[in-house]
Amino acid sequence: MALLFMSLAERGAVWARVFEQANERFILGEDAVTDPAEVTHLACWQPPADLTVYPNLQAVISVGAGVDQMPAMPPGVTLSRTIAPGIEEMVRDWVVMASLMLHRDMPQYLEQAGRGEWSAKGVTLARKRRVGIMGMGRIGRLAAASLSAMGFNVVGYSRSGTPVDGLNVFGADQLGDFLAQSDLLVCLLPLTPQTEGMMDAAFFAQLPQGALLVHAGRGKQLDMAALRTALDAGQIGAAMLDVTEPEPLPNDHWAWSDPRVVITPHVGSSTDHEEGARHALAVLAASRSGLPIPGEVDQQRGY
Amino acid sequence: MALLFMSLAERGAVWARVFEQANERFILGEDAVTDPAEVTHLACWQPPADLTVYPNLQAVISVGAGVDQMPAMPPGVTLSRTIAPGIEEMVRDWVVMASLMLHRDMPQYLEQAGRGEWSAKGVTLARKRRVGIMGMGRIGRLAAASLSAMGFNVVGYSRSGTPVDGLNVFGADQLGDFLAQSDLLVCLLPLTPQTEGMMDAAFFAQLPQGALLVHAGRGKQLDMAALRTALDAGQIGAAMLDVTEPEPLPNDHWAWSDPRVVITPHVGSSTDHEEGARHALAVLAASRSGLPIPGEVDQQRGY
Repeated sequence: MALLFMSLAERGAVWARVFEQANERFILGEDAVTDPAEVTHLACWQPPADLTVYPNLQAVISVGAGVDQMPAMPPGVTLSRTIAPGIEEMVRDWVVMASLMLHRDMPQYLEQAGRGEWSAKGVTLARKRRVGIMGMGRIGRLAAASLSAMGFNVVGYSRSGTPVDGLNVFGADQLGDFLAQSDLLVCLLPLTPQTEGMMDAAFFAQLPQGALLVHAGRGKQLDMAALRTALDAGQIGAAMLDVTEPEPLPNDHWAWSDPRVVITPHVGSSTDHEEGARHALAVLAASRSGLPIPGEVDQQRGY
Repeated sequence: MALLFMSLAERGAVWARVFEQANERFILGEDAVTDPAEVTHLACWQPPADLTVYPNLQAVISVGAGVDQMPAMPPGVTLSRTIAPGIEEMVRDWVVMASLMLHRDMPQYLEQAGRGEWSAKGVTLARKRRVGIMGMGRIGRLAAASLSAMGFNVVGYSRSGTPVDGLNVFGADQLGDFLAQSDLLVCLLPLTPQTEGMMDAAFFAQLPQGALLVHAGRGKQLDMAALRTALDAGQIGAAMLDVTEPEPLPNDHWAWSDPRVVITPHVGSSTDHEEGARHALAVLAASRSGLPIPGEVDQQRGY
């Protein structure tokens, strides 16, 4: 049993140390592989084109929380996404920050500050703002709990519509009803064929006039041209985006200089190198003892 | 028993309607007073220079949450500050937003966005950030609860040092110890002779290098020149200010264009006209029945 890690030297050095301490076999980079049959686990962001060169491969570990960059796994190969302590809380914190920034008119105040203009708007009470969260995974539930605790009226949306934590959750067949009551919409959905390109003109038209958009899902879910049209029409009031298509967003993209849009460079979470290595060790341990693989991805659903 | 309201016509019209519905005598503006002896209550932001022209005055009501603009009351006159539902939650929301913005490097990302630069920094876990909150009134306690719930390590500071809600609270004689462990400092103190000018060079020097400052107290508590020096020295990393001295901050003030400082125009809270009027009615009702006056200010302490 050996783990092949495809990564840069800096991160590789941290992993090498953690694996050495745990007495687990660790190979950094494909060039260092002497016997492909030895490789049982592969950790990477983008895997090699042909995984079948490793005949005894048991699991592929995405070093991030997302797996939409991964190809289909060969039969019998488990796909695991890195779950490190605090990752989901990091994204929750970004979502709460972004939601509060839109709720409290930060885009306007930032624009005014650029002109040295002191001009106060009235404050809307949190309980008068209806928040709709798309994606009821752990991050969505954490965000719902934090925003509810601050008084926002929060509902959820998920494919199944299964209620969680006492929250009203709309299912896939109730998307229109869900959008119609989302003054502030938070997207935390995984990228799947169903969610790619989901946020388009027809989607925005179902939101209340002037709705606010917090996007921490995946860039490909949002039609940026449709967003711009919706902003111009006043259908969307303002947006906070942590993900874009493409990433990095080109230097001359319109969204950088639009005062109604605030962009952060995909910083919802970042995995500490050591915590990433520990997740990989946990996958090895589970493989060895036949226990469920930590972070295992349902390859049918795609998350 | 009559209430004299010194305000602008728009707010006055809302109050007049609320008072009429409650069958309480309401006078809008000093010019409308025919019998000064009739005035038992006065609601205003800045009171008239001579309150003794109203011989039967029982209470003065500040239409805001602050009373530092008020002169000393004549003997026997109660001072009340407006407490409306949600006011303290509004300030808490601003404080949580500002704390998260500094915690998650928003000043840097906003500056980068101005150049169209996509460059991600690592994320610090909330539990690795020590937050110190100065002011353990209701807003301070609400902010402490919200930030603690998100994982931040929160301690408090108050004159008495009395622990609240299981929080470790430093007293006035432990200011240095409190500051030394505040990576992120939140000021929510009332303006008093003790707090005026409190945040100066000597104060900043006691904070950890690169500390972050969230200021939602009063402008006069912060020495802006000392803040600029501390930012240049790296002693303060960044600051979010909702209060300044003076207000409005002049158009050409250095802080507007400093990327390390984000300013909002005193928007921590705003009182809904109708809710302000209801508070005044509650004061009248308490006066009539001899019950404690809502929002009564301890005139010795000044808050």
